[in-house]
Amino acid sequence: AALQSPTTAGGEPEAGDVCAEIAEHPFGDPTFTGRTWPLADVRLLAPILPTKIVCIGKNYADHVSEMGGETPPAPLIFMKPSTTVIGPGLPIQMPPDSQRVDYEGELAVVIGMPCRDVPEARARDVVLGYTVANDVTARDLQQADGQWTRAKGYDSFCPLGPWIETTIDPGDLAIRTELDGEVRQESRTHLLLHPVEELIAYISRVMTLLPGDVILTGTPAGVGPMADGQQVSVTVEGIGTLTNPVRAR
Amino acid sequence: AALQSPTTAGGEPEAGDVCAEIAEHPFGDPTFTGRTWPLADVRLLAPILPTKIVCIGKNYADHVSEMGGETPPAPLIFMKPSTTVIGPGLPIQMPPDSQRVDYEGELAVVIGMPCRDVPEARARDVVLGYTVANDVTARDLQQADGQWTRAKGYDSFCPLGPWIETTIDPGDLAIRTELDGEVRQESRTHLLLHPVEELIAYISRVMTLLPGDVILTGTPAGVGPMADGQQVSVTVEGIGTLTNPVRAR
Repeated sequence: AALQSPTTAGGEPEAGDVCAEIAEHPFGDPTFTGRTWPLADVRLLAPILPTKIVCIGKNYADHVSEMGGETPPAPLIFMKPSTTVIGPGLPIQMPPDSQRVDYEGELAVVIGMPCRDVPEARARDVVLGYTVANDVTARDLQQADGQWTRAKGYDSFCPLGPWIETTIDPGDLAIRTELDGEVRQESRTHLLLHPVEELIAYISRVMTLLPGDVILTGTPAGVGPMADGQQVSVTVEGIGTLTNPVRAR
Repeated sequence: AALQSPTTAGGEPEAGDVCAEIAEHPFGDPTFTGRTWPLADVRLLAPILPTKIVCIGKNYADHVSEMGGETPPAPLIFMKPSTTVIGPGLPIQMPPDSQRVDYEGELAVVIGMPCRDVPEARARDVVLGYTVANDVTARDLQQADGQWTRAKGYDSFCPLGPWIETTIDPGDLAIRTELDGEVRQESRTHLLLHPVEELIAYISRVMTLLPGDVILTGTPAGVGPMADGQQVSVTVEGIGTLTNPVRAR
């Protein structure tokens, strides 16, 4: 069940959905306090505050192709600072330093326990669940800098949510990004060049992962710019839809 | 005074130096508990656990030159995960994935308050103090990946310490790295292409900085590989010496 919406076993929220409060952090089996609210009445926060956000570049062949690059033999990792995280509904703020800020819809993995050197065969054991992410990118600054940290690192550049889905299989989920209701990205996670288990094994060979750390698994083809006043939605099958307005800062 | 060694106004520890315990986190005016120990009897931990470590590449002209690159017009930023941090005396662990792990001695800035869009003229106001860092880098992986996150991100790749010096001027400090007692890097911080104030202004235009966040200001010429069993020391004038053994993992 989705931790912030235990009556919804994934999928789109419906009119009768309720949020049930849990007593503690989301790791381990939740204790419900008994307090509930209609989902429509609450403002969902980002479902996790990660100590680090590790992202994967060039992980769908069609996106590598549209960017004119080559497929790297191993996962290409980079980071976003934790100050990029915002929840559903909060505005993505476009900085004056950039002339082109793109959406990048992605499946996100939330780590459930401290781990290092995790074998692929045991990778699922260290996962708390899955959520939806938008790896917002100042495309012009990415190209200018070479290193991607600045282009990917502005405040509000990592919308996460709407909740963490703990019971799905990430192997073949539909993923879709809409800009003002028009479909711009549409793919499936079975097309990830390096799947979730391989990413966890690879990253945890480098760095210890901690509970709440987030892995952004990469974006498919169809990336493009957003404009002030638009609204961007990323949907991952079995999880839900993450929607954020876009504002000039 | 150095927060973890208030009797030492910077510089090398001496035989009679004592550590005085403070009652709370290091932000604001410290309250001393009255408990003290000889410095020689304590094991110093890393002086801060940052929510993020923002690093600057290519910030000394002689280092840019030795790497065969060009000086970027603006600061080039990248990140190390917080799981890279170790304190003085703990081993830098060389991973089996790399055949060449380099030291990079650096002046580190510790942020003292939440801040964003800090003007250069007020940059000193947001600084808690300064410490010493070693931006350990798997040079072969840095060149193979293009993005520097993996090469700079292994556990133990960010020694920090020995303490935070709160009263120095960072504008012109001698910096020196020794490998098994041989001087390998020797420079002064007035040679930083982008000085501390400019770095704080530039980074805080991108991301909110939080108390304890660390900025690594870049390394001068003389970088080179370390081997199992060696010992590396980085000294910044007015702060102290950060020493770590090197071990194959």
